[in-house]
Amino acid sequence: MKELSYKLILEYDGTGFSGWQIQPNERTVQGIVEDALGKILKHSVRVTAAGRTDAGVHASGQTVSFRATSQIEGSRLKRALNGILPRDITVLDAAETHSEFNARFDALSRTYQYTISNRRLSIGRSFVWQVKYRLKCELLEEATRSLNGECSLKGFSVKNDNDDYSTIIYKNSWTFEKNLMIFEITAVRFFRHAVRSILGTAVEVARGKESPDLIHRILKTEDRTLAGSTAPALGLCLVNVDYGDGKQ
Amino acid sequence: MKELSYKLILEYDGTGFSGWQIQPNERTVQGIVEDALGKILKHSVRVTAAGRTDAGVHASGQTVSFRATSQIEGSRLKRALNGILPRDITVLDAAETHSEFNARFDALSRTYQYTISNRRLSIGRSFVWQVKYRLKCELLEEATRSLNGECSLKGFSVKNDNDDYSTIIYKNSWTFEKNLMIFEITAVRFFRHAVRSILGTAVEVARGKESPDLIHRILKTEDRTLAGSTAPALGLCLVNVDYGDGKQ
Repeated sequence: MKELSYKLILEYDGTGFSGWQIQPNERTVQGIVEDALGKILKHSVRVTAAGRTDAGVHASGQTVSFRATSQIEGSRLKRALNGILPRDITVLDAAETHSEFNARFDALSRTYQYTISNRRLSIGRSFVWQVKYRLKCELLEEATRSLNGECSLKGFSVKNDNDDYSTIIYKNSWTFEKNLMIFEITAVRFFRHAVRSILGTAVEVARGKESPDLIHRILKTEDRTLAGSTAPALGLCLVNVDYGDGKQ
Repeated sequence: MKELSYKLILEYDGTGFSGWQIQPNERTVQGIVEDALGKILKHSVRVTAAGRTDAGVHASGQTVSFRATSQIEGSRLKRALNGILPRDITVLDAAETHSEFNARFDALSRTYQYTISNRRLSIGRSFVWQVKYRLKCELLEEATRSLNGECSLKGFSVKNDNDDYSTIIYKNSWTFEKNLMIFEITAVRFFRHAVRSILGTAVEVARGKESPDLIHRILKTEDRTLAGSTAPALGLCLVNVDYGDGKQ
């Protein structure tokens, strides 16, 4: 039977999930999306995501691919999924795509946002790391300045089975609005805990505990022991995956 | 014993509360704030709020007054309260104030915001009314144009024991950003369900079900039966109370 390829763009509030990746007896985004697709398509489905977000990490532009044996129009699939998915997952877009499409391996870059607040907050508190120390905006910007171009993220990654931690960082920026400090970074690929480890380190710099060249030194030495503690998951959001098709 | 007067500015996520007003066996903002003040001040405290928000309604600028028999510095009171309050209430400011201050009766105006989304959303879904119908922005603006100056909100209020539903509306505006439609309205005073009833009516107009002059007609006739259904609590937020002191 001919298989057809589909692409989904998902938004989710990561608060209630044990992350993206399916695990027995855990509430995962992958598990719930595969269940919903199974009900609609009447066959079991395995989905592939561009970024396997950790427990508590959010997404406003997660991209997912899967194959199906039956044809279904994108807008109908989107409506059917949103009809049965729980309120913390939303399908923003669904479309049939070219047969070889793989959301993970075809991605040219991923963009993550990390949000910090310098004050206690109640509204939106599940999406923001509340840092008690006074942080200097200039130091946040200075700390992350060297995150550009080809580099190794080994010093910012959890030890796992990767041999190669190289990536290309296309851009990074800080936006400061009211009490919020929002970091956005785009790179070919990331590694487990990398953005959170970068943020934890940048905060150490911005509160004056570490020198502004610390991130630069970790990039050069790949020394994990130099990095600050990993920033909490709740501030992180996968906002976009680029496939070079001009679509967000 | 001499009594001292204090003013608090509160932010809260209304999702987990049965509203502002204290009720037996219910989790209310007033009940929790009074408990926390009692622990800090070592005597029972009764607080008065500028706006008695309903169950599910949020606040980013609720203002509260109370009297205490002991003196405590504002910044210390704020720190102590935030140390024991649950995460869904935050004290933004605390200060000693003039002895006659009453957060309810001294308020010159209140400002509420109501947020609508025209698409399903997962992130921030506790703060937005998701309307399934396609809404025209121009019709939302046209619908609310007559909400200005002296008027009676009787036609937009739940029947209760008020004799007088007159108020002065100082301004109202719509902001449209991405999928969100944000209505902001400032008036001397509001009545129970008034903003939500106005919004419910504006949505009926914006989806083309009612004529654009409906709000104008309800203002003139005070006829409750003409108004649309009451918009859900979760989209509403008390954002500011003005005391003419130049402070927000």
